[in-house]
Amino acid sequence: MSGNSFGKLFTVTTFGESHGSALGCIVDGCPPGLELSEADLQNDLDRRKPGKSRHETQRREPDQVKILSGIFEGKTTGTPIGLLIENVDQRSKDYGNIAEQFRPAHADYAYHHKYGFRDYRGGGRSSARETAMRVAAGGIAKKFLKQRYGIEIQGYLSQLGPIKAETLDWAHIENSLFFNPDPTIETQLEDYMDALRKEGNSIGARINVIARHIPPGLGEPIFDRLDADIAHAMMSINAVKGVEIGAGFESVTQKGTEHRDELTPEGFLTNNAGGTLGGISSGQDLLVSMALKPTSSLRIPGKSINTRGEAIEVVTHGRHDPCVGIRATPIAEAMLALVLMDHMLRHRAQNMDVTTDTPIIPAQA
Amino acid sequence: MSGNSFGKLFTVTTFGESHGSALGCIVDGCPPGLELSEADLQNDLDRRKPGKSRHETQRREPDQVKILSGIFEGKTTGTPIGLLIENVDQRSKDYGNIAEQFRPAHADYAYHHKYGFRDYRGGGRSSARETAMRVAAGGIAKKFLKQRYGIEIQGYLSQLGPIKAETLDWAHIENSLFFNPDPTIETQLEDYMDALRKEGNSIGARINVIARHIPPGLGEPIFDRLDADIAHAMMSINAVKGVEIGAGFESVTQKGTEHRDELTPEGFLTNNAGGTLGGISSGQDLLVSMALKPTSSLRIPGKSINTRGEAIEVVTHGRHDPCVGIRATPIAEAMLALVLMDHMLRHRAQNMDVTTDTPIIPAQA
Amino acid sequence: MSGNSFGKLFTVTTFGESHGSALGCIVDGCPPGLELSEADLQNDLDRRKPGKSRHETQRREPDQVKILSGIFEGKTTGTPIGLLIENVDQRSKDYGNIAEQFRPAHADYAYHHKYGFRDYRGGGRSSARETAMRVAAGGIAKKFLKQRYGIEIQGYLSQLGPIKAETLDWAHIENSLFFNPDPTIETQLEDYMDALRKEGNSIGARINVIARHIPPGLGEPIFDRLDADIAHAMMSINAVKGVEIGAGFESVTQKGTEHRDELTPEGFLTNNAGGTLGGISSGQDLLVSMALKPTSSLRIPGKSINTRGEAIEVVTHGRHDPCVGIRATPIAEAMLALVLMDHMLRHRAQNMDVTTDTPIIPAQA
Amino acid sequence: MSGNSFGKLFTVTTFGESHGSALGCIVDGCPPGLELSEADLQNDLDRRKPGKSRHETQRREPDQVKILSGIFEGKTTGTPIGLLIENVDQRSKDYGNIAEQFRPAHADYAYHHKYGFRDYRGGGRSSARETAMRVAAGGIAKKFLKQRYGIEIQGYLSQLGPIKAETLDWAHIENSLFFNPDPTIETQLEDYMDALRKEGNSIGARINVIARHIPPGLGEPIFDRLDADIAHAMMSINAVKGVEIGAGFESVTQKGTEHRDELTPEGFLTNNAGGTLGGISSGQDLLVSMALKPTSSLRIPGKSINTRGEAIEVVTHGRHDPCVGIRATPIAEAMLALVLMDHMLRHRAQNMDVTTDTPIIPAQA
Repeated sequence: MSGNSFGKLFTVTTFGESHGSALGCIVDGCPPGLELSEADLQNDLDRRKPGKSRHETQRREPDQVKILSGIFEGKTTGTPIGLLIENVDQRSKDYGNIAEQFRPAHADYAYHHKYGFRDYRGGGRSSARETAMRVAAGGIAKKFLKQRYGIEIQGYLSQLGPIKAETLDWAHIENSLFFNPDPTIETQLEDYMDALRKEGNSIGARINVIARHIPPGLGEPIFDRLDADIAHAMMSINAVKGVEIGAGFESVTQKGTEHRDELTPEGFLTNNAGGTLGGISSGQDLLVSMALKPTSSLRIPGKSINTRGEAIEVVTHGRHDPCVGIRATPIAEAMLALVLMDHMLRHRAQNMDVTTDTPIIPAQA
Repeated sequence: MSGNSFGKLFTVTTFGESHGSALGCIVDGCPPGLELSEADLQNDLDRRKPGKSRHETQRREPDQVKILSGIFEGKTTGTPIGLLIENVDQRSKDYGNIAEQFRPAHADYAYHHKYGFRDYRGGGRSSARETAMRVAAGGIAKKFLKQRYGIEIQGYLSQLGPIKAETLDWAHIENSLFFNPDPTIETQLEDYMDALRKEGNSIGARINVIARHIPPGLGEPIFDRLDADIAHAMMSINAVKGVEIGAGFESVTQKGTEHRDELTPEGFLTNNAGGTLGGISSGQDLLVSMALKPTSSLRIPGKSINTRGEAIEVVTHGRHDPCVGIRATPIAEAMLALVLMDHMLRHRAQNMDVTTDTPIIPAQA
Repeated sequence: MSGNSFGKLFTVTTFGESHGSALGCIVDGCPPGLELSEADLQNDLDRRKPGKSRHETQRREPDQVKILSGIFEGKTTGTPIGLLIENVDQRSKDYGNIAEQFRPAHADYAYHHKYGFRDYRGGGRSSARETAMRVAAGGIAKKFLKQRYGIEIQGYLSQLGPIKAETLDWAHIENSLFFNPDPTIETQLEDYMDALRKEGNSIGARINVIARHIPPGLGEPIFDRLDADIAHAMMSINAVKGVEIGAGFESVTQKGTEHRDELTPEGFLTNNAGGTLGGISSGQDLLVSMALKPTSSLRIPGKSINTRGEAIEVVTHGRHDPCVGIRATPIAEAMLALVLMDHMLRHRAQNMDVTTDTPIIPAQA
Repeated sequence: MSGNSFGKLFTVTTFGESHGSALGCIVDGCPPGLELSEADLQNDLDRRKPGKSRHETQRREPDQVKILSGIFEGKTTGTPIGLLIENVDQRSKDYGNIAEQFRPAHADYAYHHKYGFRDYRGGGRSSARETAMRVAAGGIAKKFLKQRYGIEIQGYLSQLGPIKAETLDWAHIENSLFFNPDPTIETQLEDYMDALRKEGNSIGARINVIARHIPPGLGEPIFDRLDADIAHAMMSINAVKGVEIGAGFESVTQKGTEHRDELTPEGFLTNNAGGTLGGISSGQDLLVSMALKPTSSLRIPGKSINTRGEAIEVVTHGRHDPCVGIRATPIAEAMLALVLMDHMLRHRAQNMDVTTDTPIIPAQA
């Protein structure tokens, strides 16, 4: 592999499989002096953790994170932060069938052909279980960005299958079972999910994430543009098949006069750009949206082949989210936090007021 | 900046502004022994170059590339390949106004706030002119991938504003003025563009790129997934606002039974995944689609502010593409080639048959 | 920090402080299919661990490594390998004095000025305790290199203060208390170390490392030369103040006719180059030598200042190696293994026989 | 290759061969607002360029550097800086013999085995000619470090074969033909070199570099320590076989009481550490020393083999430095500047005063 690190200056490297003994990560590059405790990270881990309602996988993982290094007297020291989460509910069961089967839409087939060999227990490394460490690491970035710069990051489910959120009630999101911002569709979502579960099927979803109070200037063109790194981050989340910034695919049918965000002394009049211009933050809210495919594990039989190339029928038993999109909300927030944190440090490195040597980006007043 | 390199093992680093003396790049990591000449790169540069029809900017650039190093007796030596393209048609004109104006939807505002200072001539570094070097470098990757592995990469315009290509006639693409694959809409496109030009407006577009004969196994989860790196690459192209792999945003409304690509001994039955599973190529065609916003330079006045924060009205004169999406086709192909080349080398590095030490990915028969 | 990763393709990232709860690392990029167990790593950890004789620090650490991921059915899967070693003998004591003191030749002063804040317990991150993880990670590289390519890496103490090893008896090294290859000086070393301990002083040392059966072709000029990466690796070990390849500083007084290693059909006649030409391995043995400064913790009082800039006298009590050079031998071996492993993968990525696609470097027959 | 970039945030990527049409590099990461012209870089290029006296190769290269991008109205813009130097004196001659010969101590043998193919004209990429771009890029770093932080970097020849500089007269260095700081040995050096040239032989040398006014805090342990990156940088220079920081190999025989640099309120009493503690700058002068092997090209015949493995006798005609160490002085200065610049940016990124957000390292008063 060697693709398990994210970020250039605020670097997160993770390890761990679905059914191994533990998941872990190293966060390297956190500035010294940040007050940080395990409790700071637990809230988002709890938002992501499985089994919070009947609409999620029933695997029970407390996802208690331990900080193993990098903190002294309650503050970060500037040295690498080691994080660990033990797996406690990896059920022993007979994986004999799965070992030789390529489940449709799973990573089985690709992993087998890449490595000639795979840890098939619960999907191994390709399981969404690894995203717990993204959320833990992202929690550090979120805290720093909030405290130092006032940046706030919030995600929500904007669509689940055919059901769209039409209103955006920020207060409702954390009360919803689905990170749904529209109180009027909550029951509809519950009914839809119940029917889906009975059917043994799954469904796709759309997640939006917004970041507010972004200073202008973040992003390193031409390749490490802020929007490009966001696209990378979001598409690296399991099941994501599409990413949009601002108007996204609506831009295809927009004319220039419609798309361009005009400026006045009071600010931008619209936000089709979604907060980036030329790959650099403009100071407007960052608007990111992504599509997640339906969960691949289904109780409805599907055609496939085994490792010997023979036709088989696959049925997936076990515990799975009928809509992986739901729990993706805190993951998407975490990834956006990691991107912003990395770009904040990158920007700080090279851009300073020429005469005073102070960074162009100021601390929050 | 320091964000001007792309790729981990097949690394492309570029420089150059719209109105500087030259554009250049260094391609580091090309395997030795590849036959390579300037002519190999010129075809794609010609496909991208401006002024080929009345529907493009009338800037005249021959975009003749020079290879300055890394080739000996007609073959790559394994040492870095220096490429150079001189700018010949950067018209001298009075940029006095632009210097103090933030043109809506341009990078002006963001560059100003990032660096406190910008080269405003023709957009400087943020001009799409830099994409010439992407196409030149991508040409090396394209040739290697084709010759060694038989991989073919082809892009096309799938939608321009409201007009969609309904059929896919591969032979028509290179005959079209728009990389349009549907002969039945060619006239419609011409008329639409003529009207747009008269109006002084611009329009968005959708570009698709397909890569065929991809071996399974490319991609380095969990962060450097093949699809994540493709999303990064595409979103790093000027004006791109959205990226999809396979079913993309259609996945949102798909059920699991609908999305999953079933397997038979004869192969996959569908390709909603777009060629990647778990972030690793599956051997199916790679299907990538992207949205490009309308060109920001318009003859229709728009509201903005100047560097002193005062309200102004902006009108852009000069030479511009009314639809930047059109010429983006060879750029998107080049970026996909760069991603695949980098991942081919990354895969080769770590995956070999354990007993024979030969790479898991074979050369083309 | 963000400087806690080593290697480009075979990447080792570490965390952990002297008196934290654990040390850990992530090894990313290990090829799949390598048989690997904790026992494979324990031997070198035992060679490095403290308290093996009276000539070393009396801190008692079993240094039992746990593999937390990346292994399935006894083999590496190609996914990241998480390693953990718990600290068990970090004595609680009053660090009140040290907190405000800058001990001469320690990292205290520099850490304080870099971070404005430091974990002073046992040196925190700057303690040589972190090298345990280098040895654990290096063990994986050592095993792969030995098994696949037959490469062997061996270090030894070539000088301790004024006492030089004059003969090279490979069999004696592992029997010696000092990794000393010269049986005739073993008693002399013991006596010297006993006197030193009584004196409360410390002494420098020279360590040599040799790697055999290296294929020609490893190294990526012009910056990532094999010798340059070795110099980086060795100088990154605590207390190292100088690095030589081959003839090293003797080259200064050599004439060209004396230094050049002539070639015959039977091979090279000498090895002043130390196994690299133009930054690339020549197939000769790699010869590396390094200087380690005397331990900084002394019972003999020294002048210093405290964090308020006031003059103080510093005396170090507690448990320390009187010669850090001794235990550096397995660390230097590990670092050389990491460099070679990384370069082996880098070389594989880009260099293949053009017609057969097999790597230029063959597996061991 | 893919090893042709140096630095993480201030990144220099180079290309070019001895007998190609041009050498070039891209400097990515230079902060905006630095006044910069070609004249700023020319002085060091002139110090390095060949043919300044009879003691150097007689190849005549003006080494006129062109800045192709990244500057606007006389200042850096923060975008990548493209640099180009044309080769003007690459004599056409018959290389027929060299093509099949492995010259002893040259890179021929290693390049051949790595790539299976090499550009043998004048050593191709392995020629010291590539160091011109290091000096050009280093000139940008030198100017920034001097102007913003007052940092000064100065190198000198401390030993040539058996002749050592015993005094350090800074003013003499630039008047000497050898970057020699000791006026009393200048004639001795001339005589030695004249005799050597007549003999057709070559000689090694030792170069020292010092950097003054370094703020404490530069360096990113544990792997990207300042001293480790310096070792990497220096060992990446052609012909360097050893690197020392501070007391270097003298540390081997030093006791702790002798080596440790005691501190008083007025500062450090000695500088055995050479300016780094725990891999981080201490604010003392950085003291670096390196060994360069004798030039490999000799008129005195030597034994070797050809590409078919047959015994041959090699005599090198053509133009060569009898002591490559002499012209290495500005190269070593440039590499030290690149390391310091990169670490200055890295440090800035992550370390700031927690309440004011100003960097811990201040601008020069």
